[in-house]
Amino acid sequence: MTGETVATFLQENPRTHMCGELRASHIDQEVVLFGWVSRNRDLGGMIFVDLRDREGVCQVRFDPDYGEETFKKADSLRSEWCIGVRGKVLSRGENSNSDMPTGAIEVMAEEVHVFSVAQTPPFLIRDETDANEMLRLEYRYLDLRRPKLQQSMIVRSKVNQIVRNYLVDNGFLEVETPYLTRSTPEGARDYLVPSRVNPGKFYALPQSPQLFKQLLMVAGFDRYFQIVRCFRDEDLRADRQPEFTQIDMELSFITPDEIMSICEGMIKKIFKDVIDVDLEDSFKRLRYDEAVDRYGLDDPDLRFGLELVDFSEELKDSDFKVFSATIADGGKVKGICVPGGATSMSRKNIDALEEFAKIYGAKGLAWAKVNEDGWSGSISRFFDDETRATVETKFGANAGDLLLFVASTRNIANASLGNLRKQIAKDLGLIKEGDFKFVWITEFPLFEHDEETGELAPMHHPFTSPRPQDFDLLETAPEKAYAQAYDLVLNGSEIGGGSIRIHRSEIQEKIFNILGFTEQEARDKFGFLIDAFQYGPPPHGGLAFGMDRLVSLLTNKPNIRDVIAFPKTQRASDIMCDAPSVVDPEQLVELHLELDLDED
Amino acid sequence: MTGETVATFLQENPRTHMCGELRASHIDQEVVLFGWVSRNRDLGGMIFVDLRDREGVCQVRFDPDYGEETFKKADSLRSEWCIGVRGKVLSRGENSNSDMPTGAIEVMAEEVHVFSVAQTPPFLIRDETDANEMLRLEYRYLDLRRPKLQQSMIVRSKVNQIVRNYLVDNGFLEVETPYLTRSTPEGARDYLVPSRVNPGKFYALPQSPQLFKQLLMVAGFDRYFQIVRCFRDEDLRADRQPEFTQIDMELSFITPDEIMSICEGMIKKIFKDVIDVDLEDSFKRLRYDEAVDRYGLDDPDLRFGLELVDFSEELKDSDFKVFSATIADGGKVKGICVPGGATSMSRKNIDALEEFAKIYGAKGLAWAKVNEDGWSGSISRFFDDETRATVETKFGANAGDLLLFVASTRNIANASLGNLRKQIAKDLGLIKEGDFKFVWITEFPLFEHDEETGELAPMHHPFTSPRPQDFDLLETAPEKAYAQAYDLVLNGSEIGGGSIRIHRSEIQEKIFNILGFTEQEARDKFGFLIDAFQYGPPPHGGLAFGMDRLVSLLTNKPNIRDVIAFPKTQRASDIMCDAPSVVDPEQLVELHLELDLDED
Repeated sequence: MTGETVATFLQENPRTHMCGELRASHIDQEVVLFGWVSRNRDLGGMIFVDLRDREGVCQVRFDPDYGEETFKKADSLRSEWCIGVRGKVLSRGENSNSDMPTGAIEVMAEEVHVFSVAQTPPFLIRDETDANEMLRLEYRYLDLRRPKLQQSMIVRSKVNQIVRNYLVDNGFLEVETPYLTRSTPEGARDYLVPSRVNPGKFYALPQSPQLFKQLLMVAGFDRYFQIVRCFRDEDLRADRQPEFTQIDMELSFITPDEIMSICEGMIKKIFKDVIDVDLEDSFKRLRYDEAVDRYGLDDPDLRFGLELVDFSEELKDSDFKVFSATIADGGKVKGICVPGGATSMSRKNIDALEEFAKIYGAKGLAWAKVNEDGWSGSISRFFDDETRATVETKFGANAGDLLLFVASTRNIANASLGNLRKQIAKDLGLIKEGDFKFVWITEFPLFEHDEETGELAPMHHPFTSPRPQDFDLLETAPEKAYAQAYDLVLNGSEIGGGSIRIHRSEIQEKIFNILGFTEQEARDKFGFLIDAFQYGPPPHGGLAFGMDRLVSLLTNKPNIRDVIAFPKTQRASDIMCDAPSVVDPEQLVELHLELDLDED
Repeated sequence: MTGETVATFLQENPRTHMCGELRASHIDQEVVLFGWVSRNRDLGGMIFVDLRDREGVCQVRFDPDYGEETFKKADSLRSEWCIGVRGKVLSRGENSNSDMPTGAIEVMAEEVHVFSVAQTPPFLIRDETDANEMLRLEYRYLDLRRPKLQQSMIVRSKVNQIVRNYLVDNGFLEVETPYLTRSTPEGARDYLVPSRVNPGKFYALPQSPQLFKQLLMVAGFDRYFQIVRCFRDEDLRADRQPEFTQIDMELSFITPDEIMSICEGMIKKIFKDVIDVDLEDSFKRLRYDEAVDRYGLDDPDLRFGLELVDFSEELKDSDFKVFSATIADGGKVKGICVPGGATSMSRKNIDALEEFAKIYGAKGLAWAKVNEDGWSGSISRFFDDETRATVETKFGANAGDLLLFVASTRNIANASLGNLRKQIAKDLGLIKEGDFKFVWITEFPLFEHDEETGELAPMHHPFTSPRPQDFDLLETAPEKAYAQAYDLVLNGSEIGGGSIRIHRSEIQEKIFNILGFTEQEARDKFGFLIDAFQYGPPPHGGLAFGMDRLVSLLTNKPNIRDVIAFPKTQRASDIMCDAPSVVDPEQLVELHLELDLDED
């Protein structure tokens, strides 16, 4: 087909419908469809083509009695050829296929045009594929033809529009912040961009627009949002990408309750409009301390029970010396009661759980099975009847349950049991699909101790405001101060987080002081923010949601690569377009750079 | 004010209105306003504060009889302090100020809270400012408080939403493309990002998502859009920024007419919804050749006449040897008739115009004034009565008009007269403010001759499709082929451009061939696109609009820096946050780089 005939065909045959939208109500209509040959079969002297576009698949029938030339052309069609079809919608009658949304009809082709032919693709364009991910990433443009991935992208586009329209309706302005900027305070490694016109100097790609959004508040924009790309040069885990997308927002003159309420409204609208799920009216809230006490983690999955119970008081005189000694040393004994675990969990299962707990620092996992007539298991002989009764009562345990204990520091007991709790729920199938449990985690500690140096480090970032009642603690015991910070957790994943920011320079200076910054260091890093706060900054706060994670949870995709059109591998490479790649030496000269590859 | 009292005040006094929205209809209402002290005056024992927020300014009155303590606090207020006010809306009665939207009312303050104080700003926060731009960029967060810039950002945010909602309503999907990618074919200099985990390799920041959007078409997404940042490391002109924003779109199975119609709908909606201007039903179109012939440029300003007239036929035997010799050499003699220019333009004006024309390569500017009784001026003596009459008739000239001529190559005659035309219109005030003249320029040449090498180079980019009727010319006379390309020009600025793309690999290969790429070079640069075209690519085309320019024209801002929140200087620097800046040597080691500053 020459260029002219393609142009002529398109001009003379404007598309009337998308393949996926045809229904019985279209019967007898003349239609023009464009799409890809998903399947073609020769049956009983006729050819049946499944024609696929973004909206779905529809069957096209070619009948030699209906047009010899068209039938001949159809005979040459192969998978993934791109074609246009003009024809008439007919009922499939008794041959209806109720598995297909378009299964009640077929299109009897009168004319077919081949826009382009296709080689045999390296893997089948089907939802269920066993092609390995590297091959699929190399041919991403074919992988993206799979209906599942098309749906991911359609959902993602919808979420974008819902978010923006909701925020604009709530008085937010969309403001674009720079991508060529300087280091921001998130503390991960920056991607750098050498400057050609400023020799020896570098831009940083933003880890978030944190400073800019605070400056927009100083500038009086009142409510800001942006769906924005952020960049972190970190060693990649399965759920990390070097570039990721944030729903970023900041508000002036605002209380945490108002921020949370606005975000809940946004999330509820997304779930209702995209997957027709009505979320609860207002989301549960847990203080950080309570979350960690009850679930071991600050991103608890509330779709199941298995709460952690603290026996440090009840077992401080236990005959089991591991327990009593740990408690005497200031540690904790905490446990989980697994309902029915006495029968559903084998000794092998329990050994595996112990190994799992050790990943998080636990020395061991003590356990007992609750039987009708007492306990069995490693530690049961150390427990007298009275202690057993106390433990069973606090656990709410019944015969047939399995009791698991970790004795360690508070942090290790929580981390190991918190993760064990998730693992057990997965093993025992306690998680109902399609269940969405949101919880706000509030009142985080303002600081945490840096694991390496032991020094105080901000738990979020250094602009997070303490609770008003804790301002004085900054002088006396900053490690006891709590932050006006809040994370939103969905099904055990943090999907967003934010805080009220410091807007008074004397408080900001105190924080920098506590963090050990000299005045000069603070100026070098954040001088322009400190300056800005000299000119009437409003009280303000904000939040950022991780868009990739949110869409992956919404579409039930375990891997965020399935909700990103062109993701990178764990080596931070795009293997389709071969990025990063070597560049012309002349380019480096212009950038005043030399490669130094000896280190490797 | 401590943190606690700020929090308490915000909790107990949720904002009821924005300052700028109060009207007579609010009289007698209790209101809570937040904002900045724009002005405060002590008049007749009372204090009047102009309180400013994003939506406008409203007068707040403090009366000692109404509350002694509040009055005292008000007495301490200074410009740009950030405050909250609770009070009652009163009529200003006879003191109404019709210059202010809120001028009919004032708020009698009952309570005032100071959120933060301010130093004296380095310049007044007023629309009319004589502060130099460098100072304003350094304190951009204060500059952005000026109502004019706030309005720019508000308009920009509105345009974003209108564009997205319009495109989504027209079946477009928003898909995010990578920022860490590889060189794209625009041909400007790339910004590079060194990779840490892939030593010696670099990402490029995209000059546009051109290849990705074409791949999205191959992937079957049918209609794609994105409001996306693009990056070009070019020497900056007044209207260029190292990062800029594009409304980017691509469509499958589409004709140029359909694309243009969709874009016209979008532009019309923006102008209607944002500035309430009804644009003409369908935009004018000019073929490239006609645009250049009549206006000298391919981005003509149609708000005024002064069209170029070609006298190469009429004057080929002119006694004025400069004319006849130029024509004999294959050059052109073209002219502009300036109505009334004989009186409105002095000799000095004309000399200045000649200097201006020389910038574009003209050797000189011949001129004549048309008087009631003949011509006067440098060249008049070379023209006999008959030739004068011929010229006057073709120009439609009348007594009092000024005739200007350039004799040169076609390109120089067009460029110099085309730019002269714009300059004269500006000088003579021929441009009506608030006039918006759109024109599509179509059928660009497919190739142009590279100025340096003389070789054929794509006029747009190498993926632009020839016109269907010109496919055969690729073999015989590629320089004569025209492209299926179209630019949208508004008031003499190109605001968007696009084309139908090549979707057949054999045509694409021919183009690469004509451009002198070896097969290997083509593969190295665009291998993944060539591969993708083996798998049933749909016919497709698209367009990109320059958002910064569009918003600057919409808001009548001459400088795109006034429609970008945090723009960079001509040295590509952000002088507020000091980017680019030097980095820790350790960071360069991690990136396998060394500085090489000797060259400078």
